[in-house]
Amino acid sequence: MSRIVTLTTDFGTSDAFVGVMKGVILGIAPEARIVDLTHEVPPQDVRAGAYLLCGAVPYFPSGTIHVAVVDPGVGSARRALVVATRTALFVAPDNGLVSLVAPHAAVRGIWDVSRSRSRLRTVSRTFHGRDVFAPIAAALACGAAPAGLGARVRRMERLAPARLRRERTRTLGEVIWVDRFGNLVTNVGAADAPGARRDGAAARRTFRARALSVTIGTHVLPLLDSYADVPQGHAVALVNSNDLVEIAVNQGSAAASLGLGRGARVIVRRD
Amino acid sequence: MSRIVTLTTDFGTSDAFVGVMKGVILGIAPEARIVDLTHEVPPQDVRAGAYLLCGAVPYFPSGTIHVAVVDPGVGSARRALVVATRTALFVAPDNGLVSLVAPHAAVRGIWDVSRSRSRLRTVSRTFHGRDVFAPIAAALACGAAPAGLGARVRRMERLAPARLRRERTRTLGEVIWVDRFGNLVTNVGAADAPGARRDGAAARRTFRARALSVTIGTHVLPLLDSYADVPQGHAVALVNSNDLVEIAVNQGSAAASLGLGRGARVIVRRD
Amino acid sequence: MSRIVTLTTDFGTSDAFVGVMKGVILGIAPEARIVDLTHEVPPQDVRAGAYLLCGAVPYFPSGTIHVAVVDPGVGSARRALVVATRTALFVAPDNGLVSLVAPHAAVRGIWDVSRSRSRLRTVSRTFHGRDVFAPIAAALACGAAPAGLGARVRRMERLAPARLRRERTRTLGEVIWVDRFGNLVTNVGAADAPGARRDGAAARRTFRARALSVTIGTHVLPLLDSYADVPQGHAVALVNSNDLVEIAVNQGSAAASLGLGRGARVIVRRD
Repeated sequence: MSRIVTLTTDFGTSDAFVGVMKGVILGIAPEARIVDLTHEVPPQDVRAGAYLLCGAVPYFPSGTIHVAVVDPGVGSARRALVVATRTALFVAPDNGLVSLVAPHAAVRGIWDVSRSRSRLRTVSRTFHGRDVFAPIAAALACGAAPAGLGARVRRMERLAPARLRRERTRTLGEVIWVDRFGNLVTNVGAADAPGARRDGAAARRTFRARALSVTIGTHVLPLLDSYADVPQGHAVALVNSNDLVEIAVNQGSAAASLGLGRGARVIVRRD
Repeated sequence: MSRIVTLTTDFGTSDAFVGVMKGVILGIAPEARIVDLTHEVPPQDVRAGAYLLCGAVPYFPSGTIHVAVVDPGVGSARRALVVATRTALFVAPDNGLVSLVAPHAAVRGIWDVSRSRSRLRTVSRTFHGRDVFAPIAAALACGAAPAGLGARVRRMERLAPARLRRERTRTLGEVIWVDRFGNLVTNVGAADAPGARRDGAAARRTFRARALSVTIGTHVLPLLDSYADVPQGHAVALVNSNDLVEIAVNQGSAAASLGLGRGARVIVRRD
Repeated sequence: MSRIVTLTTDFGTSDAFVGVMKGVILGIAPEARIVDLTHEVPPQDVRAGAYLLCGAVPYFPSGTIHVAVVDPGVGSARRALVVATRTALFVAPDNGLVSLVAPHAAVRGIWDVSRSRSRLRTVSRTFHGRDVFAPIAAALACGAAPAGLGARVRRMERLAPARLRRERTRTLGEVIWVDRFGNLVTNVGAADAPGARRDGAAARRTFRARALSVTIGTHVLPLLDSYADVPQGHAVALVNSNDLVEIAVNQGSAAASLGLGRGARVIVRRD
């Protein structure tokens, strides 16, 4: 079986942490296809890791195993989990990291694998990515059922959602991520915009049909379609490729130009 | 079929953009072997991406599919292309990105895949790496013929070459890239040096046999063979592993030591 | 045969150097499974590369081929080696890079492959990762015996060990690595601590059973079990996942908080 195993961590790439996890996985599941999502989650930033998983997971084939390790509680009593949704399996610490990509309604099962016999024989107190999460993922890649790896449990930790207030003519949200290009990604989804219908498919179209503006800091920007809709160096608001409102600067960095970052408030208004 | 698909982008590795492209590719072409060339092309720097492809593509087996996404025009009318040479296929925006590695004489065919049915069902305005280039590359990896993916076209955008003037006793060029070590890579090839013969195989040998010097900034350096030909910390000019004249500092950074970077003028002189 | 080939270099990821090595390997050994350990070894820092290999190699399956290229002497007379241990093969320049992971007693054979016919047809003076080490590793991945690639030799360069002095009630060592999280990793192993027994399996247990403290700079820290044993932002000493004494700050950076880095002296004391 040639299952895909993705890795999302805050381990960076200057140590061999990630390579070691791959060695463990391939030692157990030689046919696994390992894909890095990112290892540059800011250290211990569970919320950032949770956001990044959300945008990536839908683009992987059904049955993919997603390992996520942003784990400030390593060595404490926090549990190690396997979480199943209809299309994916997650292996992660129980700290909310997979709670955004696996909302309550989507979860088909949660198993506590903290004491699984599939862990490495020696388990350190500081590197469960290697000793717990990698071998558990490899066991799943080999076809093990989650129920064989640990006891089923009913709950997992969930992150409180970022501030989002939906009013009749405006929606208030905040910047939740600054990407590589300096684009400011907000938690306002296409379906959250004022006047948008709540049903997924139609939301985007509806959204575009209306005249909306986005206020961030002292700037008021019309909501347009793409970076190229404004001249080079100008700021623009748009719905990004994950259906979230984003503030960008065409061929520049919105974060640098506007001097704003995570947590900055945004207001999406129907004019 | 186990085709190699390489990826060259300016997406960085702190987001999951690259991982998402891999998810799309493996969902369509599960046997594809995906290799990262680099994702650290400076944002929107088409010329840097074009240079990096040049040095890498010759070292991949025939039939390799190279996906390159440095795409300041995403969302605009710029086309998405498949370009075929004798040994490789390229999937990239039509902005000159593959024009250095696929010079006019080498091109066997160009297809406009902007509207291909092989794109993802929903195509965003901001992430064609995921929605257009990845699935097109995956279709090629599955054996699709380029002609089945789009209409053949005659031309693609080409970058203007970097300044290079070949005179009888000197050649004038410029620094086109600063590598990880701070080496200053120029556009003066072994075959461009004064007195060099134009035929590939002999050029390098000819080049070495003559006494040549390289002037950059206020420095005049003899052209030697390797970093180790000068003491540690000293500057040296040599023909690098891509047959380009390069200025280096043995176990140091020429960029930092000389205070020079891209665009700096160089003169290669026969003494 | 589907052999794992790992890569450890100081090439960074902003150039295509690593991608090119992979192209060469896959052109010769299409079934090789290539895994990056890290490419962020500080430029020319052989000792850092040697340390990073030590922690990673034990977690790869037997028969893995480890290519390591941190090569300040490229282009000089330094040899290219294949080194065999009981469980792994190493391909690296003869500069001490694999000497920590392959101590004298573990070495089963050393071969000088500097002039091997398995090198690329054209060998540059500046990029042996591509021209020598990658094709040699690929030949091994295809099942070639080391003896078919070069002449057996008796010795290789070895790094002088970092300063370590073992006294009756204290052990003096130093910080040899600062990891991504700012953790200060020392060369004091569990078995080196005062009062520890020398035999591997028991060392860790013995170590924990005793009251030990770690002095670094002006700080004296008790040796505890995990990051979570101290409040957030507090410093802690522990035995890390490679069985080395490490100084950390829970959810912070010890390097930044203590203002210390590689070379800093540490004393492990029995109280």
